[in-house]
Amino acid sequence: MSQRPEVNRRFVLAERPNGPPDENTLRLEETGVPRPGDAQMLLRTEYLSLDPYMRGRMNDAKSYATPVAIGEVMTGQVVAEVVESNLDGFAPGDHVLAASGWQDYAVSDGTGVMPLGTAPENPSWALGILGMPGYTAYAGLLKIGRPKPGETVVVAAASGPVGATVGQIARLKGCRVVGVAGGAEKCAHVTGTLGFDACIDHRAEDFAARLAAACPDGIDVYFENVGGKVLYAVLPLLNPFSRMPVCGVVSWYNLAGLPEGPDHGPAIMGTILRMKVKVEGFIIFDSFPQSVYEEFRADMTGWIAEGRVQYKEHVVEGLEAAPAAFNDLLAGRNFGKMVVKVA
Amino acid sequence: MSQRPEVNRRFVLAERPNGPPDENTLRLEETGVPRPGDAQMLLRTEYLSLDPYMRGRMNDAKSYATPVAIGEVMTGQVVAEVVESNLDGFAPGDHVLAASGWQDYAVSDGTGVMPLGTAPENPSWALGILGMPGYTAYAGLLKIGRPKPGETVVVAAASGPVGATVGQIARLKGCRVVGVAGGAEKCAHVTGTLGFDACIDHRAEDFAARLAAACPDGIDVYFENVGGKVLYAVLPLLNPFSRMPVCGVVSWYNLAGLPEGPDHGPAIMGTILRMKVKVEGFIIFDSFPQSVYEEFRADMTGWIAEGRVQYKEHVVEGLEAAPAAFNDLLAGRNFGKMVVKVA
Repeated sequence: MSQRPEVNRRFVLAERPNGPPDENTLRLEETGVPRPGDAQMLLRTEYLSLDPYMRGRMNDAKSYATPVAIGEVMTGQVVAEVVESNLDGFAPGDHVLAASGWQDYAVSDGTGVMPLGTAPENPSWALGILGMPGYTAYAGLLKIGRPKPGETVVVAAASGPVGATVGQIARLKGCRVVGVAGGAEKCAHVTGTLGFDACIDHRAEDFAARLAAACPDGIDVYFENVGGKVLYAVLPLLNPFSRMPVCGVVSWYNLAGLPEGPDHGPAIMGTILRMKVKVEGFIIFDSFPQSVYEEFRADMTGWIAEGRVQYKEHVVEGLEAAPAAFNDLLAGRNFGKMVVKVA
Repeated sequence: MSQRPEVNRRFVLAERPNGPPDENTLRLEETGVPRPGDAQMLLRTEYLSLDPYMRGRMNDAKSYATPVAIGEVMTGQVVAEVVESNLDGFAPGDHVLAASGWQDYAVSDGTGVMPLGTAPENPSWALGILGMPGYTAYAGLLKIGRPKPGETVVVAAASGPVGATVGQIARLKGCRVVGVAGGAEKCAHVTGTLGFDACIDHRAEDFAARLAAACPDGIDVYFENVGGKVLYAVLPLLNPFSRMPVCGVVSWYNLAGLPEGPDHGPAIMGTILRMKVKVEGFIIFDSFPQSVYEEFRADMTGWIAEGRVQYKEHVVEGLEAAPAAFNDLLAGRNFGKMVVKVA
């Protein structure tokens, strides 16, 4: 950068949403660009990751982590370029993974920042297949789901970054893999490009019957990332001693309270009991030792290099487009990993 | 027996209940007493165990095990005396644990029969604290719940054979133990005789608030045996990385379909996710290796001998009283392990 930038645009949490986020939830502000002090650097956001967990951070409730405070910059992982640096080990032109949120610029002291080198091939992949969503899929499936060859694995949001990765890894492990996605185009991608054995459109009226037909031997691993009607269609199909890693319930994130009945509590708990199901919630950065992350990096970079894992992004242009893109994500209107190209 | 008995009374499943069992569910029949053939013996029932799982066997649905067929003798564990024997290793006067069901007499070839000796001190305890309910409590708590000293353990039906045993073992392991039971008399027994730190009456209008007040540090292990409102009051109190062994959901066993809303599915799954809860259903004779049973027998007989574990039975007189007693059990009107004294 030959000339120092002057304006930082940022989205702050203006008020907590009651249901889906709306035009009052986030506020776009313009401020000056901060100057890095000693042992600090200035980062310019290149890509902002949009992920379902962010909806939980908008609530003032115990969730994954501390909620975003009112007036605070909305949280989020980014790939950024180092613009100025007074910090050893980081120089202008370096690319990094950082948690600097929904804004153009941020000052960092390097805490939690991961270097990506000076010319990463696909920098935004650090937000997806090689980052949190990919690691979530890998660890949840292999360490909690523990699929065995020949077993049936079901995953929803199958064209999204977690679901797509879960299914492809399960295929590599010799499982029958059935995805669930919204619409014919996504389902064609899931079976065609990603190589799942089947993909069921959750918009179909006879969705539950189609899912059952695609799982003639029942379900051994249900990787839970959506909740709602997919979960309820899965329950009667679960086999004895099946496993259910729970990394998300995105279809329920916008609920302002418990929905209308009937109460599916007895179906959930009764199935867990009768089928001796193991259900385990996990948050990727809390639930596994560092050694699992190292395994993930080694396996995933190998699989990508060998062309055994495919990855699709849904890129939205411009920071100002982030709020609408986030609502699209919660509603399943994305097709692939949602990232915002900021700079 | 100096004179050979002539009449065998037995309860057969007459029709499948839709909701609570009623007077049409079971039919009392009188038949001749069967004669044991070669390598068989005749057993006379002394005590019949009544347990919540029996409600599931009345349904024509996949459950713990094969349903009882219409016209078949209702299934159940008994303590019996050997009356005649053509079977090596068993002699008249021996007492045994057998699965001969709701009837006075049965012929057995010894399959699944466990000898109890000629003069067991408390023969009916083989149906409770030293049998299936005690083993359920022991294995579910220690192998799935994995309580650590200082943690808070909550269990419902706390004066019943499973709940009482769970709580007493958790106390022996150094936990804070909070029981849930129906009525002041049971609660007094749970804290007084069984030594729980607290017991909350689930009939109290402010039950959820009382439970929360009794768990100031949250809940680390919830041993699930009832479902319903106890579960729903527990959910907001669960700590990160808490464990929930699921051995029953007795408050829901009489449901003919899903109950009215609201739908607690999002609360169940959302809590599992946010709190990284591990939930595992288990059936005692499917889920653990034999070595766990040996551990249980050794530990439990030791604790009983040392007076460190108390046990209470609710004894009903006469086989004919079994159907009403079973409904009392499902409604929580028992006080202690429900057994029918048959002979």
